[in-house]
Amino acid sequence: MSALSDLLAFQKETEALSAIAGRLEWDQETMMPEGAAEQRSEEHAALSSVLHARRIDPRIGDWLEQARGEAQSEAQTAMLRHIRRDYDKTQKVPARLAAEIARVTSVAQGKWAAARAADDFKAFLPWLEQVVSLRQEEGEALADGGDRYDALIDNYEPDMTAAQLGQMFGTMRPRLTALREQVLDRPEPAGLSGSFATDKQMEFTRALAVAFGYDLTRGRLDLSVHPFSSGSGSDVRITTRVSEDDPFNCFYSTIHEVGHACYEQGIDPAYALTPLGHGVSMGVHESQSRIYENQLGRSRAFAGWMFDQMKALFGDIGVADADAFYRAVNRVRKDFIRTESDELQYNLHIMLRFDLERALVSGDLAPADLETAWNDRFKADFGYEVPRASLGCLQDVHWSVGLFGYFPTYSLGNVYAGCLNEALRRDVPDLDAQLAKGDTTAATTWLRSNLQTHGGLYRPEEVVARACGTAPTAEPLIRYIEDKFTALYGL
Amino acid sequence: MSALSDLLAFQKETEALSAIAGRLEWDQETMMPEGAAEQRSEEHAALSSVLHARRIDPRIGDWLEQARGEAQSEAQTAMLRHIRRDYDKTQKVPARLAAEIARVTSVAQGKWAAARAADDFKAFLPWLEQVVSLRQEEGEALADGGDRYDALIDNYEPDMTAAQLGQMFGTMRPRLTALREQVLDRPEPAGLSGSFATDKQMEFTRALAVAFGYDLTRGRLDLSVHPFSSGSGSDVRITTRVSEDDPFNCFYSTIHEVGHACYEQGIDPAYALTPLGHGVSMGVHESQSRIYENQLGRSRAFAGWMFDQMKALFGDIGVADADAFYRAVNRVRKDFIRTESDELQYNLHIMLRFDLERALVSGDLAPADLETAWNDRFKADFGYEVPRASLGCLQDVHWSVGLFGYFPTYSLGNVYAGCLNEALRRDVPDLDAQLAKGDTTAATTWLRSNLQTHGGLYRPEEVVARACGTAPTAEPLIRYIEDKFTALYGL
Repeated sequence: MSALSDLLAFQKETEALSAIAGRLEWDQETMMPEGAAEQRSEEHAALSSVLHARRIDPRIGDWLEQARGEAQSEAQTAMLRHIRRDYDKTQKVPARLAAEIARVTSVAQGKWAAARAADDFKAFLPWLEQVVSLRQEEGEALADGGDRYDALIDNYEPDMTAAQLGQMFGTMRPRLTALREQVLDRPEPAGLSGSFATDKQMEFTRALAVAFGYDLTRGRLDLSVHPFSSGSGSDVRITTRVSEDDPFNCFYSTIHEVGHACYEQGIDPAYALTPLGHGVSMGVHESQSRIYENQLGRSRAFAGWMFDQMKALFGDIGVADADAFYRAVNRVRKDFIRTESDELQYNLHIMLRFDLERALVSGDLAPADLETAWNDRFKADFGYEVPRASLGCLQDVHWSVGLFGYFPTYSLGNVYAGCLNEALRRDVPDLDAQLAKGDTTAATTWLRSNLQTHGGLYRPEEVVARACGTAPTAEPLIRYIEDKFTALYGL
Repeated sequence: MSALSDLLAFQKETEALSAIAGRLEWDQETMMPEGAAEQRSEEHAALSSVLHARRIDPRIGDWLEQARGEAQSEAQTAMLRHIRRDYDKTQKVPARLAAEIARVTSVAQGKWAAARAADDFKAFLPWLEQVVSLRQEEGEALADGGDRYDALIDNYEPDMTAAQLGQMFGTMRPRLTALREQVLDRPEPAGLSGSFATDKQMEFTRALAVAFGYDLTRGRLDLSVHPFSSGSGSDVRITTRVSEDDPFNCFYSTIHEVGHACYEQGIDPAYALTPLGHGVSMGVHESQSRIYENQLGRSRAFAGWMFDQMKALFGDIGVADADAFYRAVNRVRKDFIRTESDELQYNLHIMLRFDLERALVSGDLAPADLETAWNDRFKADFGYEVPRASLGCLQDVHWSVGLFGYFPTYSLGNVYAGCLNEALRRDVPDLDAQLAKGDTTAATTWLRSNLQTHGGLYRPEEVVARACGTAPTAEPLIRYIEDKFTALYGL
């Protein structure tokens, strides 16, 4: 056995154990009996401890040294790069700090939920202060003298920096706020009305999942409070939720998660249980969920097909024709909540969070001043006041669990989706004619063969650039949004 | 930290990982997408390897030495006894042999399934020979010069011996074969007929599970090909199956698994994630599933309640009254298959397997002669010929996966159930009046507080003796069967 094969065999076992940990979380959100929560946290802790011990195992360092020059292929070289990267990170973060972050964030999440329910930012503040301080310390440890927010971003989006993101957002913000103002001056389109029984929603959402290429022989669809996708390789499961008076909630959640799941299912099977066997970054992952949900799922062509399907299944759905349905699918409303936002406003929500968390991590913004800073910024970008913290700075779970550097990957996903959409439409000129028949095959096949199949083989920006034939920028996304909403609202 | 607390903390983590492994198997039988089988076997292997490394960890031996005299309670003493027992076993079986058994049995199971489907004992013979030979070797290693079949029995039923079992079966066999002959001379009672839709069966089977005290806030009920119970503590899940023309299949499978599950759910929560937090042996476990299913569930009193419930739910079920229903529930038929057998014939199936596997392990019976030996013995006890191997020596999975010494625990469970039933009826004189109302509370409370709560605290035979106030024998079971079937068949 060579050092390389020893290392890859060790890694394969770690990947398999990590897949089990993921399935345990899936079980917790979908199947676990309510009374099992306490026992489950013991199980989770035991498996986490096994995984942690493997990730810091000093043999990894030895194998990496001995395996220099042993890689025989592009794939093996990429595998070693991922393993080196993860191992170096574990070496930089002291065990005490890692344990403290795990301890504090697991408590802080509950404190956040209670504070949000009570609309009481001050109740959450002491916990936010601890989490920010710990992540600052982690960023410092990871940064090697560089920028600590960059180091945190790198946990979710390797090689991306706050400077690049800041520039990207700088291009987007004025054009999106201007368009938003124009759109909100126009009359609000009607939404759906009718009777949307749970079993019929589940029947149609399953049909949508299949229509977008989700392979149910290597996955399954269940219900959970918050929809998610989980797993890799041949076991990639998704969840959705049903609200009887808002069927789009279920349908577009499903299409979104199908995008994530198809990315995982689309990776070259040769990479299964290796570091290449997962989506390469949060941003690239989100590009798949977004292009499925938005550029394909909310297109005029696909909406036309969907209108016919829904009318056949649910009867009168309260909108007269496919055009009205398309307007309902893409309705822009004054609101506060990121997760319920539309394509036009979504990125404004993210820019707000990006600037605030960047300032929190650098120390320019004290956690105590977050609520005021949030509300001021929201007023500036959206034009109206945040009435309470649950509609403002307490709306998202992310900061309570320590996810600093994660939010911008959502917008990066949108930007990548904009680029991919442009390239896809260039390569498949009659795409709309296909989507109008509910046929996504050409689109999903293009995404699979140009991007999904590569898994972790290339770096994030590189895999998007290869698929598009050009380096990604925000321009295609902005153009797409401007064209779409200008036409939709007759501007 | 003392050696004792170190050891128990280590053990707790092992128990938690082992619970995860159990849940992974549950997932495989109930939820896993079909395409995930190969990846799942990698996951399973990775977790097994982690668990194996923990079980042979030499620190356990050191801690056990240092912890001598540290146990402060009966429970701690019992925990150390379990840990010592398991550790000593791992020390006696060479790693090479353990790995070879795992490898061969995982292949042999598939070979058995194919041979059974083709009714071809000879196709399975080479694999049976390997499995027998490996288990002989394992028994030899475990036996320390004692009897190797005893050593294998001890894996499932600590402290039980083939000699004791042989004596028990010796008492039962002539009386059961004689009774069987008399019963089969009488006209066969009618079975059910009617329409038993899957959703209604699931509705009623869920009601039955609750009626027998299964706590769905710490468990769940799903479908699988073969019903089973899985898990301990606050997460104990059961499965059932539905055959639309045979509702008893679903209902009595459910009650049986509820017996197993209630045992696990009934254990003192203080023992969770310790070696005392599981049923203490296969025999005691089976005593719970059997008393729920048979002595309670197939009693005249409970059958009366069940008849009313089923009539209300399904309409005409093809039997005129509660007495006819009771006869249908306890119908004795000429058949070949153990798992479909009734209370009267079931133990005869076990005795046959016990004698044959004892002879296989000792070497008195060559695997090549198994089919003939099986068919001869079946003719002697049941009075008719076995027409093909799938109805004979290939019907059970057990030997293919190496379970030698397991079969007798089924009958031991019946014997224990007979003793417990006698003691229960002594302590709860109006039990039948309660069962006639579908109320099992007194029975299940008695079983929980007298037996289930103890988990692994006492040795198997001891926990039954404590519950009954007297050492268990086969006599109560035989009397119960004789009384029941003599009355049922008007003998």
